Amino acid sequence: MKIVIIGAVAAGAKAAAKIKRLLPDSSVEIFTKDTHVSYSSCGLPYYIQGNFEDYRTLLVRSPEEFRQGGIDVNLETNAEKIYPEKNVIVVSGPNGRRTESYDRLIIATGASPIKPNIKGIDDFINIFTLRNIEDGINIRTQMRKSKKAVIIGSGYIGLELMEAFVKNGLETVVIEQKSHIMSNFDDDMSDLIRERIESSDYKNFKIVTGDRVSEFFGENGVLKSVITEKGQRFDTDLAIICAGVKPNIELAQDAGLKIGETGAIEVDKLMRTSHEHIYACGDCAEKTHIVSGKKVWIPLGSTANKEGRCAALNAAGIYSEFEGVLGSTVTRCLNTTMSMTGLTEREAEQIGFTPVSVTIEKPDKVAFMPDASDITLKVIADKITGLLLGGQAIGSIGADKRIYSLTSALLAHLTVEEFGNNDLTYSPPYSPTIDPLLNATQALCKRIAKSC
Amino acid sequence: MKIVIIGAVAAGAKAAAKIKRLLPDSSVEIFTKDTHVSYSSCGLPYYIQGNFEDYRTLLVRSPEEFRQGGIDVNLETNAEKIYPEKNVIVVSGPNGRRTESYDRLIIATGASPIKPNIKGIDDFINIFTLRNIEDGINIRTQMRKSKKAVIIGSGYIGLELMEAFVKNGLETVVIEQKSHIMSNFDDDMSDLIRERIESSDYKNFKIVTGDRVSEFFGENGVLKSVITEKGQRFDTDLAIICAGVKPNIELAQDAGLKIGETGAIEVDKLMRTSHEHIYACGDCAEKTHIVSGKKVWIPLGSTANKEGRCAALNAAGIYSEFEGVLGSTVTRCLNTTMSMTGLTEREAEQIGFTPVSVTIEKPDKVAFMPDASDITLKVIADKITGLLLGGQAIGSIGADKRIYSLTSALLAHLTVEEFGNNDLTYSPPYSPTIDPLLNATQALCKRIAKSC
Repeated sequence: MKIVIIGAVAAGAKAAAKIKRLLPDSSVEIFTKDTHVSYSSCGLPYYIQGNFEDYRTLLVRSPEEFRQGGIDVNLETNAEKIYPEKNVIVVSGPNGRRTESYDRLIIATGASPIKPNIKGIDDFINIFTLRNIEDGINIRTQMRKSKKAVIIGSGYIGLELMEAFVKNGLETVVIEQKSHIMSNFDDDMSDLIRERIESSDYKNFKIVTGDRVSEFFGENGVLKSVITEKGQRFDTDLAIICAGVKPNIELAQDAGLKIGETGAIEVDKLMRTSHEHIYACGDCAEKTHIVSGKKVWIPLGSTANKEGRCAALNAAGIYSEFEGVLGSTVTRCLNTTMSMTGLTEREAEQIGFTPVSVTIEKPDKVAFMPDASDITLKVIADKITGLLLGGQAIGSIGADKRIYSLTSALLAHLTVEEFGNNDLTYSPPYSPTIDPLLNATQALCKRIAKSC
Repeated sequence: MKIVIIGAVAAGAKAAAKIKRLLPDSSVEIFTKDTHVSYSSCGLPYYIQGNFEDYRTLLVRSPEEFRQGGIDVNLETNAEKIYPEKNVIVVSGPNGRRTESYDRLIIATGASPIKPNIKGIDDFINIFTLRNIEDGINIRTQMRKSKKAVIIGSGYIGLELMEAFVKNGLETVVIEQKSHIMSNFDDDMSDLIRERIESSDYKNFKIVTGDRVSEFFGENGVLKSVITEKGQRFDTDLAIICAGVKPNIELAQDAGLKIGETGAIEVDKLMRTSHEHIYACGDCAEKTHIVSGKKVWIPLGSTANKEGRCAALNAAGIYSEFEGVLGSTVTRCLNTTMSMTGLTEREAEQIGFTPVSVTIEKPDKVAFMPDASDITLKVIADKITGLLLGGQAIGSIGADKRIYSLTSALLAHLTVEEFGNNDLTYSPPYSPTIDPLLNATQALCKRIAKSC
């Protein structure tokens, strides 16, 4: 049995290691364009921030470790073509171009940063995107000799890099073309996130929304400033494009594999593509949303790991289903923890639910504890069925705890009424007697006109 | 409609406030032996520790606030007898003895500290139990003029008081007659809790297990030392008895109300006793365990609040069920957060499950984050059905987050396999890519021989 894996950051690396453990006699071969395998790309903002000095800290498993485990690793080797009917792929790399046969193929080609169409975007050496380790090293090097930075986009990577730059003393401007930052939250919660971040002790940053960089300016290939559509000009020593990512589907598409309605590679619950011997997992693959049952594309490292594992099990002949995702995220930016799971109210409405929500602000511990601080919690349910649909939390460390509890509830399709009696742990240093989560679900229950 | 409530710390206070909101025209009257109503007894160790100076910080609602809300409060008034067939109770207090009629009666008489049969236990003014605000004030006063303390019992109150005394500089000895401290955990986890606490930077304490105070010694009514069965002698300036509590059922029992097999007042899901017009809630009432379906008596403040609410709804004629408890707790002692939910492995076995467990020790965040620290997590499931039965976590702040997630899973009766794909939030400052909870449930899944 020979298993070939294309791409090996999270999903591919996980799949390779898992298959080799399941089938020690199999041949497992990794091909990747990248110069590294098996690393924490989510850790890059913390490497840039300076939480640790050696980028190798990010490596989960080195090529040598894979090789010692009997897994072939081909770095900087591009998979150019898949011939599904012949069970072969064509690769080209340092050792030239060749064909490789496989019994099972796992595609884990990931996603790539979107580069908006902005004048000058390709003209300067100090405009970056952040995806792989080289990007991280380059950004950190540039940051350390810079005084000013511009970040384009205010999703979680944008905000994590903002924290990194701000804590390193750079005057940092985040420019978001939408009306709200962190648009995976509902607008009311985005407003609170922004308000809270702007109340941080750090003052060396500015958030601009509803505007868009229209041109990059510089000299001799070095960016010096940006100008926005509304005419705001910001001098800068570097710019980072954090305008989202798109799934790397070209190889799969070219091979005739089905692409889903979300634009990512279509897979079933076994992570199988439209060809029975080919699996796809991680950021290149489509997902199913557990709450809505709809196909979604939410690329996250934690999901990639689970999908890589599931693909490996099935490729090894062991039946395993991946149920799907909840879109759960947590992000830190300066003084703010923001975390969410499930559907936003906006998404719930678009999908056809009748969402009703409650937002409360409460102490996260009993108010008399010295380190109590407020948490804002929004919980969303369907008015017709009472089904819990999602939740969003903003606060200090600990806000994420409430979302951890909600993910299990969403996974189990609990109603808000069923959740109301949840026996959450209580002690003054950890929670109020009645947790904000229960305050919110009880209030929500009343709005659904159940006997709560 | 006249509702009489006996006892008003947590369950009774909650019930009173809730009923008055539901039925503004009703007459609601509280009778309590206590000098205070509606306070956080769980906050007493933190008042003693000195986290705040004024005990009134512990008051959720003062008698005056109740009265302004139209609720009569009778302090230091003992309910002596209930005549269920006549719908009256006899009370005696500052205004003498009288009868009070009711349409609905809510018994919330709470629990009392168990006083072990030890020679000298009643002879000294500096031996305390901790239950109400006077106890808290007295202990704090005594602590502040003391250098040495002995705590008898190592449950959560014992350990919370140990933290308070240790942080106030007292040489503190905890004496536990069982072989393990915190015996609501499995023994293997209790060992780890002890090990971790003993590795704290604080060194002014000693934990003694498998021994028992056999006599208190003192002079002129003042305790000076204790001696144990094994002959250990400890000089001390105060002693606290934290040897557990028992439900206050005498009044109910005398009235002919059914007492459950656990020794607490029997109630149905509506918190109704064996008499249809009488409800019981809080520490005096029996509970149903959601995982085992068995009757249990686990007295906790968070449960008392929910039960008070449920009793109020039903007493007001609004149907409401209280599903039961998971026995979820969290306790802090010095450097250690210990939290649990559901059944221990020991309990699961006694009840007739076939428990199988996995215990892992992992970083609670991605290991490269500066504040990552290890968490030990034990997850228990039934080998036959895969049903999740319980979990225990030991670590720093954040260990409780994993238990928050498990409570929802237990509430929903998830199997370990269903839990395995839980889309928990991930970001390096908050969790590893694969949360320890998923490591544990995946390992457990394998032991149950499912396709995990």
